[in-house]
Amino acid sequence: MTIDCIFCRIIKGESPANFVYKDEDMVVFHNIKPSAPIHVLMVPIEHIESVNSLEESHGKVISKMMIKAKEVAQSLGIRDSGYKLILNVEKGGGQVIFHLHIHLIGGWEKR
Amino acid sequence: MTIDCIFCRIIKGESPANFVYKDEDMVVFHNIKPSAPIHVLMVPIEHIESVNSLEESHGKVISKMMIKAKEVAQSLGIRDSGYKLILNVEKGGGQVIFHLHIHLIGGWEKR
Repeated sequence: MTIDCIFCRIIKGESPANFVYKDEDMVVFHNIKPSAPIHVLMVPIEHIESVNSLEESHGKVISKMMIKAKEVAQSLGIRDSGYKLILNVEKGGGQVIFHLHIHLIGGWEKR
Repeated sequence: MTIDCIFCRIIKGESPANFVYKDEDMVVFHNIKPSAPIHVLMVPIEHIESVNSLEESHGKVISKMMIKAKEVAQSLGIRDSGYKLILNVEKGGGQVIFHLHIHLIGGWEKR
């Protein structure tokens, strides 16, 4: 848990977010700067910096997030129409917030 | 295992590929149609159709792939410069081969 992490603040309820899913291991909320008609962020409760920080001990949460993605997509109405999961790693890979997150984007067919 | 799956053929050695990593659960090889200076595909040995097919029983292999990504990036010289992991799900999400795979792309800073 890092004091100045926006995702940790969102998880603690100190910053607002439009949540679509929450459980004891992860949260999912809408990106305030969407890059697709539907753009949510899947975020582990634990402050893991990036894919480069993933260790064996994170296996349970990262697999849970990957397996949960289809249910999140279903709840957003884009499971069958298709979506992408994207993880940006380090600044050169487009990572802006250094709390690991999976971008789930889709909904192009609806516009 | 699906008879007409190109990734299953590559895994069985029946179609060629330029491998960068192999173990008992997964293979990694260069994409023959790269969309970035470095573009490899991380593919589970088991024929899982897509992210929409992921079940609890796949937890071990999907977490292993995610945790292994940083080592693959390291071997390709792009761990620190940055990279992206992308999973396209269903046709509308850009999925072309229906054997789950993670695109690992990067290397932009080198060109």
